[in-house]
Amino acid sequence: MVRVNGNYSKLQSSYLFSEIARRVKAYAATNPPREIIRLGIGDVTEPLPAACVEAMEKAVREMGRRETFRGYGPEQGYDFLREAIAENDFRARGADIAPDEIFVSDGAKCDTGNIQELFSADVVVGVPDPVYPVYVDTNVMAGRTGGFTDGRYGGLVYLDSTEANGFVPAPPASGPPLDVVYLCFPNNPTGATATREQLAAWVDYARANKALILFDAAYEAFIRDDSLPHSIYEIPGARDVAIEFRSFSKTAGFTGTRCAYAVVPATCRAYDADGEAVFLRPLWNRRHTTKFNGVSYPVQRAAEAVYSEAGKAQCRALVDLYLGNARAIRAKMAALGHACVGGENSPYVWVKVGGSSWDFFDALLREKQIVTTPGAGFGRCGEGYIRISAFNSPEVVAEAMARL
Amino acid sequence: MVRVNGNYSKLQSSYLFSEIARRVKAYAATNPPREIIRLGIGDVTEPLPAACVEAMEKAVREMGRRETFRGYGPEQGYDFLREAIAENDFRARGADIAPDEIFVSDGAKCDTGNIQELFSADVVVGVPDPVYPVYVDTNVMAGRTGGFTDGRYGGLVYLDSTEANGFVPAPPASGPPLDVVYLCFPNNPTGATATREQLAAWVDYARANKALILFDAAYEAFIRDDSLPHSIYEIPGARDVAIEFRSFSKTAGFTGTRCAYAVVPATCRAYDADGEAVFLRPLWNRRHTTKFNGVSYPVQRAAEAVYSEAGKAQCRALVDLYLGNARAIRAKMAALGHACVGGENSPYVWVKVGGSSWDFFDALLREKQIVTTPGAGFGRCGEGYIRISAFNSPEVVAEAMARL
Repeated sequence: MVRVNGNYSKLQSSYLFSEIARRVKAYAATNPPREIIRLGIGDVTEPLPAACVEAMEKAVREMGRRETFRGYGPEQGYDFLREAIAENDFRARGADIAPDEIFVSDGAKCDTGNIQELFSADVVVGVPDPVYPVYVDTNVMAGRTGGFTDGRYGGLVYLDSTEANGFVPAPPASGPPLDVVYLCFPNNPTGATATREQLAAWVDYARANKALILFDAAYEAFIRDDSLPHSIYEIPGARDVAIEFRSFSKTAGFTGTRCAYAVVPATCRAYDADGEAVFLRPLWNRRHTTKFNGVSYPVQRAAEAVYSEAGKAQCRALVDLYLGNARAIRAKMAALGHACVGGENSPYVWVKVGGSSWDFFDALLREKQIVTTPGAGFGRCGEGYIRISAFNSPEVVAEAMARL
Repeated sequence: MVRVNGNYSKLQSSYLFSEIARRVKAYAATNPPREIIRLGIGDVTEPLPAACVEAMEKAVREMGRRETFRGYGPEQGYDFLREAIAENDFRARGADIAPDEIFVSDGAKCDTGNIQELFSADVVVGVPDPVYPVYVDTNVMAGRTGGFTDGRYGGLVYLDSTEANGFVPAPPASGPPLDVVYLCFPNNPTGATATREQLAAWVDYARANKALILFDAAYEAFIRDDSLPHSIYEIPGARDVAIEFRSFSKTAGFTGTRCAYAVVPATCRAYDADGEAVFLRPLWNRRHTTKFNGVSYPVQRAAEAVYSEAGKAQCRALVDLYLGNARAIRAKMAALGHACVGGENSPYVWVKVGGSSWDFFDALLREKQIVTTPGAGFGRCGEGYIRISAFNSPEVVAEAMARL
């Protein structure tokens, strides 16, 4: 008899954004008085940068001619892209990352979801609260948790991100040592950023406790404060204890085009059952080459174009547009008396609403026809907050703010 | 201390095709007397069909304009593609499959590798031998096997595919009942095809034993014998006991473009710990939406074009070209006195060479500058065979055959 993985039955309801989509669809069916404005899911709205479109069109035409056609590429990504990433995203910022430490993929969601396969079933996993649900759900599916009680899964260590710590949890001073910890800065959903000193504390913790940091930097392009690190590898010693995830989704509007990458430095290690160090790069390489067949060639050419001179200027303008929206949202919500975090160096504004965040979500949907994301969907510490996304046109954001 | 998943240490050497690439690269560095001809990995060489190129270029241009830009799509794939698949690949052949039973992905490698996550750790897994390595390696990584001894992993049930059974194993009449069985027809690597009666025997077995069939039909486009089923859903009762995997890689030359799909019928079931039936579609939907963010929009438009009138004709011509190569390879190898299977209704020719298949591989590489795939790389029953792939131009295949 084929038995299912019983861990799936522990998962709570549907994935957050599916639930939001369901509620919005149900409300839309009631013929709302005006157009619904979507500031919920962090999905970009502006077109792909022209440099990316041109590069992708050219690559598609190459696929149509025998002399330039490409079949299977390297699962890890083409050298042209891995080299551009290493040079521009890391070396240019003083972070020592080589092209062969970069694994190109079709999404940071996939990478942050799949990475846990490398670890033993009994590692102690720390996740922020509020949290991007993928970190949690994929560990639930893998059997690393108990059941769901009072808003949390047994066995996971939740790192409260609250007003008290400025939404940047420090390494735990007590309790079981964490083996694996997910960090995300600029944070989704709060928009909080971490300073060099705050990240250094985590690197020190990981080194001292033989732990591993899974650093999600999908929103680094929104950092405009020069004092803030973009990559965890800007922190000395991080190469040995951290894997970093990046995405072109928000940097260059690739949510529908699909390209991302993970960085697994050659020196990054975990430990075997005898406590001997094991390098993680060959393990990830084995996983990646066994279960993945590389990103579409035209998509990789589009991603490469992000690093051209024109592409850099276009991506910066794109991010600037969303940052302008974020500032407007934050200013409006603050004027309405809500405490806010994010909206600077981040496309998300984390708004303190008090009371039930799903109620506030429903009220905004029904009374103002604005879709946001209820904080409670991201964890217990998200209760009392909503996340407003700056991903829309300035005109639409202005209209939404006028409604409030 | 972060401990690794110890199951990775059971994995044998590197993935087969990486090992072949390594040997070919090493030989190429010795300055061979003439160009190396690659008939090893099953990678297409002919350009994308014009209909696909046109559709993809158009979609890329859409991504460059705000009015037609697309961000995140449905993780399961756009309706336009799921509907085209259901109509053309299934309903047109009398197989009752609906669009919402189709999950579009970026590769059958991913899907056949990921599907095992849905099952409990202790299911009894049957795999053919010789076997596409992904079925085995992903179960090893998940901890469903013991160590590797004498060419096989403990705990897996190997279904010998040999001359004696015409390379189509029948359901086991003794031994532990299988819970999950991987089948692949037209087979990779042997090229063997299964008749309606042979598949019906497996469906009967799965129904009687509450087992599940994972049916890999990535090569169905090569079937030209009208009596052979293209889909397992052409067999009555299969909807309840089988998941099918398809790919555009070989059908339409998408190995570098990346699109595939899995079919999980609404009635397909497994069982929980109490023996109660559990439908697999919602589980796969949860996994798919949690760990995957959909296929690139322009790629989905290219896949949709496979089903246009022009696309159908172009894909058929493409497959015919490779089938012509396969016939030529089979004829030559037979003339040289080798028993062969495949090469009809399949792009692969499975050639009996006797002795060590890696030695034969090395000899063909060094003496004839032809890359093949050693049968032993696919399992114990592959020893004594090589797989020759028809994926190249007719001219190159003719040159290779002339060298032999």
